[in-house]
Amino acid sequence: RRLRDLGIAPGVFAPGPLNAITDVAGVLVGHATVSEGATIRTGATAILAHGGNIFRDKVPAAIAVFNGYGKFAGSTQIEELGEFETPIVLTNTLATGRAIEAIHAHMLAQPGNSRVVSINAVVGETNDSRLNDIRAGRPDISEIRAAIDAASGGAVAEGAVGAGTGTVAFGLKGGIGTSSRRVAFKSGEVFTVGVLVQSNYGGRLLVDGVPWNASPTCEDKDGSIVIVVATDAPLCERNLKRLGQRSFGGLAKTGAALSNGSGDYALAFSTHESVRRTPERRAGIVMTPTLPNELVSPLFEAVIEATEEAILNSLCMAHTVEGYDAGSDKPSRVEAISMEALALYKAR
Amino acid sequence: RRLRDLGIAPGVFAPGPLNAITDVAGVLVGHATVSEGATIRTGATAILAHGGNIFRDKVPAAIAVFNGYGKFAGSTQIEELGEFETPIVLTNTLATGRAIEAIHAHMLAQPGNSRVVSINAVVGETNDSRLNDIRAGRPDISEIRAAIDAASGGAVAEGAVGAGTGTVAFGLKGGIGTSSRRVAFKSGEVFTVGVLVQSNYGGRLLVDGVPWNASPTCEDKDGSIVIVVATDAPLCERNLKRLGQRSFGGLAKTGAALSNGSGDYALAFSTHESVRRTPERRAGIVMTPTLPNELVSPLFEAVIEATEEAILNSLCMAHTVEGYDAGSDKPSRVEAISMEALALYKAR
Amino acid sequence: RRLRDLGIAPGVFAPGPLNAITDVAGVLVGHATVSEGATIRTGATAILAHGGNIFRDKVPAAIAVFNGYGKFAGSTQIEELGEFETPIVLTNTLATGRAIEAIHAHMLAQPGNSRVVSINAVVGETNDSRLNDIRAGRPDISEIRAAIDAASGGAVAEGAVGAGTGTVAFGLKGGIGTSSRRVAFKSGEVFTVGVLVQSNYGGRLLVDGVPWNASPTCEDKDGSIVIVVATDAPLCERNLKRLGQRSFGGLAKTGAALSNGSGDYALAFSTHESVRRTPERRAGIVMTPTLPNELVSPLFEAVIEATEEAILNSLCMAHTVEGYDAGSDKPSRVEAISMEALALYKAR
Amino acid sequence: RRLRDLGIAPGVFAPGPLNAITDVAGVLVGHATVSEGATIRTGATAILAHGGNIFRDKVPAAIAVFNGYGKFAGSTQIEELGEFETPIVLTNTLATGRAIEAIHAHMLAQPGNSRVVSINAVVGETNDSRLNDIRAGRPDISEIRAAIDAASGGAVAEGAVGAGTGTVAFGLKGGIGTSSRRVAFKSGEVFTVGVLVQSNYGGRLLVDGVPWNASPTCEDKDGSIVIVVATDAPLCERNLKRLGQRSFGGLAKTGAALSNGSGDYALAFSTHESVRRTPERRAGIVMTPTLPNELVSPLFEAVIEATEEAILNSLCMAHTVEGYDAGSDKPSRVEAISMEALALYKAR
Repeated sequence: RRLRDLGIAPGVFAPGPLNAITDVAGVLVGHATVSEGATIRTGATAILAHGGNIFRDKVPAAIAVFNGYGKFAGSTQIEELGEFETPIVLTNTLATGRAIEAIHAHMLAQPGNSRVVSINAVVGETNDSRLNDIRAGRPDISEIRAAIDAASGGAVAEGAVGAGTGTVAFGLKGGIGTSSRRVAFKSGEVFTVGVLVQSNYGGRLLVDGVPWNASPTCEDKDGSIVIVVATDAPLCERNLKRLGQRSFGGLAKTGAALSNGSGDYALAFSTHESVRRTPERRAGIVMTPTLPNELVSPLFEAVIEATEEAILNSLCMAHTVEGYDAGSDKPSRVEAISMEALALYKAR
Repeated sequence: RRLRDLGIAPGVFAPGPLNAITDVAGVLVGHATVSEGATIRTGATAILAHGGNIFRDKVPAAIAVFNGYGKFAGSTQIEELGEFETPIVLTNTLATGRAIEAIHAHMLAQPGNSRVVSINAVVGETNDSRLNDIRAGRPDISEIRAAIDAASGGAVAEGAVGAGTGTVAFGLKGGIGTSSRRVAFKSGEVFTVGVLVQSNYGGRLLVDGVPWNASPTCEDKDGSIVIVVATDAPLCERNLKRLGQRSFGGLAKTGAALSNGSGDYALAFSTHESVRRTPERRAGIVMTPTLPNELVSPLFEAVIEATEEAILNSLCMAHTVEGYDAGSDKPSRVEAISMEALALYKAR
Repeated sequence: RRLRDLGIAPGVFAPGPLNAITDVAGVLVGHATVSEGATIRTGATAILAHGGNIFRDKVPAAIAVFNGYGKFAGSTQIEELGEFETPIVLTNTLATGRAIEAIHAHMLAQPGNSRVVSINAVVGETNDSRLNDIRAGRPDISEIRAAIDAASGGAVAEGAVGAGTGTVAFGLKGGIGTSSRRVAFKSGEVFTVGVLVQSNYGGRLLVDGVPWNASPTCEDKDGSIVIVVATDAPLCERNLKRLGQRSFGGLAKTGAALSNGSGDYALAFSTHESVRRTPERRAGIVMTPTLPNELVSPLFEAVIEATEEAILNSLCMAHTVEGYDAGSDKPSRVEAISMEALALYKAR
Repeated sequence: RRLRDLGIAPGVFAPGPLNAITDVAGVLVGHATVSEGATIRTGATAILAHGGNIFRDKVPAAIAVFNGYGKFAGSTQIEELGEFETPIVLTNTLATGRAIEAIHAHMLAQPGNSRVVSINAVVGETNDSRLNDIRAGRPDISEIRAAIDAASGGAVAEGAVGAGTGTVAFGLKGGIGTSSRRVAFKSGEVFTVGVLVQSNYGGRLLVDGVPWNASPTCEDKDGSIVIVVATDAPLCERNLKRLGQRSFGGLAKTGAALSNGSGDYALAFSTHESVRRTPERRAGIVMTPTLPNELVSPLFEAVIEATEEAILNSLCMAHTVEGYDAGSDKPSRVEAISMEALALYKAR
């Protein structure tokens, strides 16, 4: 069950109908879960900003880095140009190169891309080596492409799936989690903020502010998190960066240790059709709608809430996984958070 | 009373003896509280990294900016050189220029500085105009110099004093707060992290993780915070920056809205004698002790805790203040947090 | 005479009619030259993005820092919000606080600003202590206000005026210099890039690429430069930052040593009326014209050229100044570049 | 012939004996040139900071980005930790993923790395699609590993080799170039700065300051440059970043257009044995030698000179290449710079 099913609902803004990043219209998510034998527990998750040719119709975006101990690919060009042009792929640390190759193969094969010679592949990763033989070269390129090909709207599978298959958070089984918030403006407009996380970090777990003491391992400090933030609000890339940065507020509220070894990245983008950078718009001075600085704050609060809930969803929705600890060359097992304890927990 | 006196103690690390930034040996703090008539509620707070000639013996330092809606002076040179060379002064927004003048006057007058022709004054500010006639030119230069001259070790006055005289946090009276943590390393070394804040921001107040509902105004979202972090650990400026950045984790945990209009700055420095940049050390290759990346994480957790507690101390130690709202040209009154409610609160 | 009068014309783009920052329509420049007795050789220069109430109608802007050994005020808020809201004042290093006070006084007194309680004053500085008793407190606040009040369109005085009164570049008399370039787009639009510099740095002087050997002092390495870049092209703040950064290309081409002690800042802004941030536009979603990434490159080349020429103009237009070296407490004299040598030079 | 063989010697500092990055003791360079049939003109170049296990004995480093239109891999972790842990590989844009895979394969196979589960591969790239069928998947992983395996000290092959096989600069054949400078300090120490570039950018070519008009294509503006800077001076990562940044001064002096589409990256590292981060040094407080801010400026000038000369060497040492323009699907040919014209040129 998801966090909200347990009656725990961080914050005050209402979620969208799916309480998922796919509440932001047009966003597609696909997983490839790669679990084989006793040692392979990994995968890939693809997030597509829209269903068209993203290389052609680029998407305004920004990246915020809280702690850069990670191999996030594509960051400098996103920063420089304020946009991205490929699917976003999340996977494991040592699959970054293969994920770039998979994105290249996918993009080069798109109709209309036959003369494309430069692609800025966007890849986030965390290290699933506590459950996965990360040195074994999985997911491979075709498995990663499968995640892109599987991308669809609608409900998003969470927990030990896709890029979350082998990740660990607070010593518990983490993985993929998602959540969303809707923000109504005085003007009558309603914008949605959606968040998807790959949780693989640690600290001292707080569930909606209260310390989690039901499992002794919950003080594990290692790991990283990649946070993907989508919104249909027409934000410029500067305010997208600020939006992404606020997601770290949600991260901190879960009790993150924000340790040296954590790779904490937030990639934020706008799906608003009128800010999309089509070939026509890139050919001359273009009129672009922009939500001004003075009005962005509610979105900032919304992303704090959605990130906290997405992370907790990644824990709630995960199941216990047995695998292989590649760093110590031993079998390993990581328990899911106890739903019984969580139910009691809320009842207090 | 301070937060800990109420039995509320965020985190797991132990504070230093004073639970204050002055637990970091050598750090001095001075306040100038400027309260006059019905409309002047302002002041300045000075933090000195050491008691010597700071221009001569510069201090390794770094600045982290979470949201840069502020007038922090001296930031680019701190970033470029990894050091500062003056007292740190906190004051109100429109006193920034006078604080620079005060620091200049103080530094030019120090023995040994008679030929100094360049000074990088470090000034943080938040906007106290909800209680103070900020347009009236106070504190003036001599009042700010008085804060520097008053700097001493020992216990630090908190709440509505110095630069916190007129500040507001979560709709309640905020101001100056401080806290510290001691971190023992396996090598036997014990390092201290001390934090001092000027709280003037908002959001939905959380007290050690639990929403504060005792006062309706606690959802005020406006304002800023300046966070000063001192440590006696021998950190390089890169790791000082990371340390400062982690203080925003503590900020987020208090329920900060991290809004557009907030100026959220953290200045971190090391007081370790061997990393101080004396004229001799600046004249040739110097051997410097450094705590490596691999060992900094406990300090990161400590600063999250100390920042959360320093902020809550700034609320607990403040008293109700009546003043003047300069933005609306009306009398104003900001209540202190209710200690009775807080006592009950903890008892739950 | 200006560089171009000598037949030396860096680059290929044509300058505007004044070959000055004021070719960008609406930009105003004012100087206050403060020269008194044997020791005071300083001043202030104000650049106004437009003639209206800048606090009310804010200007999209960005700051680029090549080497941050300087006291530039206002930088973090410009970076965060992508705008500024006051006149830009250039002055000497130790006048930064007074310049902030002067800007505050000016802004608080503007019609419509009677309830303003927060101002982000923008102040650039270089150190004129080789010719000026910088410790003596000049220019004072009223002298700096005079520079703001004197701001006008039209030709711009260059050389040893305003903030350039006491500055030194390449061991020669530097100061204020300006230049502009016009860029015609295929769409028929013509945009102007204007640059104004306060030159006070060093290296090995190159005049349009050729080493200057006519004066032995031209290898002086010390000091800083502040570069102000205006354009009427509708650039977003991200592309304004990139534009500002390109000015450092022009700086490098003059033979700058880019030394540790240099404060090299470029502030870039757009005067395009439709990107100005009026109260109306800040109240809701606004349609803004933007020149896309794909079309900005010619402006980048233009600013490289204009910066190089503005710097050389600051040298050509300066006269020899006798003053006081505050660092050594001795009289000093800095020669202007020899126009005779320069004329011969070109003839080669 | 190299630039200096033509009597053209930018700057005033003396080069090292090889006038190459390998003058910095311990640095190794290897090329894999991949030229096949009519359409494959590409390759890889590896730079190793030392000959040992780089993952184990990490190297202090920093990255400076002038324009981030590129796919540089590993940048955020270099920035966060101030170090790198793998060979540096330069290759073509669409080979970035394969280069990461090659580095992973190389590192995982090193003695002592059998339990390594996280690697931050460092890959720079420029786009060689004007001469190479960049979509064809070359160099492949084994070809890239061959560049790493080929790394050695001594003279460095330049021009159309390795990662420079298919690159174009100023419309002329560019490629790999290298240069070095020796800087003597008053203390008697002599440090070396070595630069290696992969030139693939444009502008209006200047040869030691003078416009190159001998070929009409020299105004081509497209492309990128990756600059690798090595020094044996004991610089901290902050000063390494500043050193890297100064290389852009050399870039600007060659007439670079610094255009929107350019990916201009400089990676700087120190080979000084005592700043290397060995497992022992990463286990406790370590004493590290550091050249202070006050003494770094001559190294800054040296890197400006060496970068300018390395770029010009990449042109001088290249030969005319016939290949395939992947963007237009046509055969292509890019001429080498005319040595005859260059010889006359200098004679002026």
